[in-house]
Amino acid sequence: MAVMTTRRTIVRLRGADGLPAPDELAVEAPLTLSLGDDVLAVLMRTPGHDLELAAGWLVAESAVRAADDIARMRESREADGVRITLRPGVAPPRSRAFVTSASCGVCSADLIDMLPPRTSAPASPGWHVSRSVLAGLPDLMRGRQRAFDRTGGLHAAALATASGDVLAVREDVGRHNAVDKVVGRALLDGSLPLRDHLLVVSGRVSFEIVQKAVASGVAGIVAVSAPSSLAVDLARTYDLLLAGLVRGDRLNVYAGSESLAD
Amino acid sequence: MAVMTTRRTIVRLRGADGLPAPDELAVEAPLTLSLGDDVLAVLMRTPGHDLELAAGWLVAESAVRAADDIARMRESREADGVRITLRPGVAPPRSRAFVTSASCGVCSADLIDMLPPRTSAPASPGWHVSRSVLAGLPDLMRGRQRAFDRTGGLHAAALATASGDVLAVREDVGRHNAVDKVVGRALLDGSLPLRDHLLVVSGRVSFEIVQKAVASGVAGIVAVSAPSSLAVDLARTYDLLLAGLVRGDRLNVYAGSESLAD
Repeated sequence: MAVMTTRRTIVRLRGADGLPAPDELAVEAPLTLSLGDDVLAVLMRTPGHDLELAAGWLVAESAVRAADDIARMRESREADGVRITLRPGVAPPRSRAFVTSASCGVCSADLIDMLPPRTSAPASPGWHVSRSVLAGLPDLMRGRQRAFDRTGGLHAAALATASGDVLAVREDVGRHNAVDKVVGRALLDGSLPLRDHLLVVSGRVSFEIVQKAVASGVAGIVAVSAPSSLAVDLARTYDLLLAGLVRGDRLNVYAGSESLAD
Repeated sequence: MAVMTTRRTIVRLRGADGLPAPDELAVEAPLTLSLGDDVLAVLMRTPGHDLELAAGWLVAESAVRAADDIARMRESREADGVRITLRPGVAPPRSRAFVTSASCGVCSADLIDMLPPRTSAPASPGWHVSRSVLAGLPDLMRGRQRAFDRTGGLHAAALATASGDVLAVREDVGRHNAVDKVVGRALLDGSLPLRDHLLVVSGRVSFEIVQKAVASGVAGIVAVSAPSSLAVDLARTYDLLLAGLVRGDRLNVYAGSESLAD
């Protein structure tokens, strides 16, 4: 049985209290789909039902229509890859991979290694943020989500200072796009790297959101929802503050709790 | 000012009532980022702040670090593309595009045209589903989201019959993966195309989710959250039932309301 959830010790803030506690996170890890020596895709997924995932991905790519279009599928021994053999005559889908060859799959550590090194520390020495600012940022962003008010169908991202000023809010059907828009605004304003700033996001935090935060140089991320295991690990690797599941004065700090102030 | 929301006439079910009503949807449309004659990416985004989106995407791809790394950016006249010129010496990012050349950007109609034709009608003649089954499916799926219960951080997808039987539930940090897993299960079971079945999803419905539904052959989609404009348009093109924003006995039917029964 694949491991779908994993534990990390986090800091739970509940009003004035804040204590380390074990927390269960959804696992996010790469799965490499390969066809012979070619990598078709590296999917960031929760382990489990990986052969189904590979099969369904092939259906969505319009490569297969029936089970016998797939001659064989097998999971690699390390369970970080699925090797696919198509029935002769079935055209393979176009590769969607950011790596084109991987003998035994890409693992989570490889992904972290692929990221460029930080050019500077994420925050000035002594940088900190109060728990009340963290807890208040999602509502401040929410108050400026104009298109969400009308549709209920848009994500949002914002940039904010550690004193709680919200600098820019952008909305998009794609949560990655909303992040790209606020970071792009900062780039065009000549404000990169965004040291001492916080990125606020309306949804969950995946590896890719943390990767975008790292590239922008922010000191931390505040999310309405929960992060994945890999998002937490990446935030810890890069010394980012990562707060999530903000509900009133209750929130979880998954990484960088040393930057918290009362 | 870019159009971020748009109206469609939908059917709002409120208990026993169900009347056509205008509804405001988040716009989803492709934006082509190009560098000379090369397409770098086609982003499915909500229009607005497209230059920021392009700039932030370049930051996330580690291609640029400061505003002057971009020599020039301009929106195409039809506002479906951004043409980028990098400062000499700045290495362009690797293309992430599924098309490698597009003189004037890919538009929403192109995306729909790129999809393969249906091989069969999505449902048997006379197929219908009752409003009470539709309204109940998200809760039935929710009752089987074991990993979500522990983490609060996973999406889910399920396959169900029109009589309300839930056949398979899969969870994943990626909502696209959860859909691929249930469709993959059906493929491996020899059940494709999934005529007369419904795909249930825990999140929002984007173009890509509808595209996966079309590839699987289901008759309809039931979503906890709202669809994008392009998702609705694609569902209408392919004669799919599309229901969303299910809250108790209140829900919206965005496409295929002729398949509703009392």
